[in-house]
Amino acid sequence: MRATILHGARDVRFEEVAPPRITEPTDAILRLSATCVCGSDLWPYRGIQAIERPTPMGHEYCGIVEEVGGAVKSLKPGQFVIGSFFASDNTCLICKEGYPSSCQHRKPVSGAQAPLLRVPLAEGTLVATPEVPPADLIPSMLAVSDVFGTGWFAADAANVKPGSTAVVVGDGAVGLLAVLSAKQKGAERIIAMSRHPTRQALAREFGATDIVTERGDAGIAHIKELTKGLGASSVLECVGTQESMTQAIGAARPGGFVSYVGVPHGVQLDGAKLFFTHVHLHGGPAPVRRFLPELIALVWNRKVNPGKVFDLTLPLAEVAEGYRAMDERRAIKALLRP
Amino acid sequence: MRATILHGARDVRFEEVAPPRITEPTDAILRLSATCVCGSDLWPYRGIQAIERPTPMGHEYCGIVEEVGGAVKSLKPGQFVIGSFFASDNTCLICKEGYPSSCQHRKPVSGAQAPLLRVPLAEGTLVATPEVPPADLIPSMLAVSDVFGTGWFAADAANVKPGSTAVVVGDGAVGLLAVLSAKQKGAERIIAMSRHPTRQALAREFGATDIVTERGDAGIAHIKELTKGLGASSVLECVGTQESMTQAIGAARPGGFVSYVGVPHGVQLDGAKLFFTHVHLHGGPAPVRRFLPELIALVWNRKVNPGKVFDLTLPLAEVAEGYRAMDERRAIKALLRP
Repeated sequence: MRATILHGARDVRFEEVAPPRITEPTDAILRLSATCVCGSDLWPYRGIQAIERPTPMGHEYCGIVEEVGGAVKSLKPGQFVIGSFFASDNTCLICKEGYPSSCQHRKPVSGAQAPLLRVPLAEGTLVATPEVPPADLIPSMLAVSDVFGTGWFAADAANVKPGSTAVVVGDGAVGLLAVLSAKQKGAERIIAMSRHPTRQALAREFGATDIVTERGDAGIAHIKELTKGLGASSVLECVGTQESMTQAIGAARPGGFVSYVGVPHGVQLDGAKLFFTHVHLHGGPAPVRRFLPELIALVWNRKVNPGKVFDLTLPLAEVAEGYRAMDERRAIKALLRP
Repeated sequence: MRATILHGARDVRFEEVAPPRITEPTDAILRLSATCVCGSDLWPYRGIQAIERPTPMGHEYCGIVEEVGGAVKSLKPGQFVIGSFFASDNTCLICKEGYPSSCQHRKPVSGAQAPLLRVPLAEGTLVATPEVPPADLIPSMLAVSDVFGTGWFAADAANVKPGSTAVVVGDGAVGLLAVLSAKQKGAERIIAMSRHPTRQALAREFGATDIVTERGDAGIAHIKELTKGLGASSVLECVGTQESMTQAIGAARPGGFVSYVGVPHGVQLDGAKLFFTHVHLHGGPAPVRRFLPELIALVWNRKVNPGKVFDLTLPLAEVAEGYRAMDERRAIKALLRP
């Protein structure tokens, strides 16, 4: 089969590789219905995060079970399933406490920008939909696999509750779905920080009540102005840079909650400064598996449409154009059809 | 009157100053029953935190109301009261949300190592005991003012609940009272990190079930060994150095809670490393005012004896010896009698 391999900065190729096969009895092989390019794929694509060798790309996926290993009892070929970027056993203490992305036996899932994917720990990792979903639900089901689950974690970790005021830093797909998540969790006021008109429009469609276009100190000042001079009780940091983190912490009120869900790149936090902000800080790789049943149900019942973040759809063979479009911010997120 | 003034590194003097007087109608003047030296006083005493001019010292206090300003209605001369290191109005939104030490109108209280003290925002800041307490309760009432309140915040912010396993990093007075606080909050297992036999003994008396003497990576390894390889769900960081913070975060399990209550000195947190630990992080200047009614009741009803951390009692005139004894770790905490 042909799959997506990153060879170096801005050198992504769709090329012949051996198809995946069952290597552990707990594995499953999926035939993917859709996959996509992640904002985090852009770090190595841009050369900011070095790669040591040609690397199979992709970790967002949904599709049909093609084959299962001998130890997999609860999944059957033909089922439509969704999983996350870390395979998890869903039985260890850390999984039970709600952090499957730090599962004691976790394994990365990689190589999902391909027609076929091997998923380790399949029973713990994959959640099946009631039936094979209709075609128009596929983008939203795919979003559940990572970006929606990550946006949901951002809202969860920032303690968004009915009536909350939430600030979302970042207008990428995760940030936009953090807006949607905050809305679903009952936030009364959702302030999206964005300076891109098309992204602002989608943020508003997802539930944003205010848009702040300033960044840095001016952005913080504007947030304070909108929150009685105090800052917000919930701030969702969905980028992962020093600037975005500083902005997020500065926009929170004392005793407020700041979540951060993008892998930080070059971020340093000064302990004394953080101390006097009095914020709660929580983040990490989103424990998407915890949220899968709830989010699949929201999509299945057509309560939300997170698939709207895919504003570009390409045949998988044109994956390199997907990377380019996202790198140049021509697209929010590129869906790939195998 | 004579009061405690820091003139430079290791140069603390008890010298003549003007007595405090009411300067705002919301002030009160207290005649102190007891005061003490704080671990945080040692930062400027050691010259690690620079002072720009001779500085009145002391921010822990309890005593009798001597005089009140014209706007103070709920306090009367003769009452015994306790307050905290930040004066707070107890009415602003931040106070109502539980963070009086970040009160919108907060003012520092300073100069408490003296016979008389001016407390701003007296009605919001001070809490009276039911009656003037008997002499043997004074040390514990004084502890409520800062170290017990701070240890309590450490336990609260680290989400210590009935059945929790809590690790306490730091065996100073705050760390020891964090042990006591974790015990009061129902922790089943309390692991104190200490290498000083007398402090270990007091930690055990306050409720510690295990003592870990190693530091750094060896300390983290020992904590993991005691917690099924996972780390603890609650870690209370009560020091404020890079080493103690690194140790605290390393001792927590994914999804666990790390509190930090000592002002960080030279602490830098790497965003990416913190991200992958998956911990919740919360701290800051302890919002002691939030806890005063509860902690005063615990002491008044003789449920706890936090005053045991005072293992040295001196006349106030000998305050310099109190600093020396704490600096040299000959004393855990020095109580001063005006």
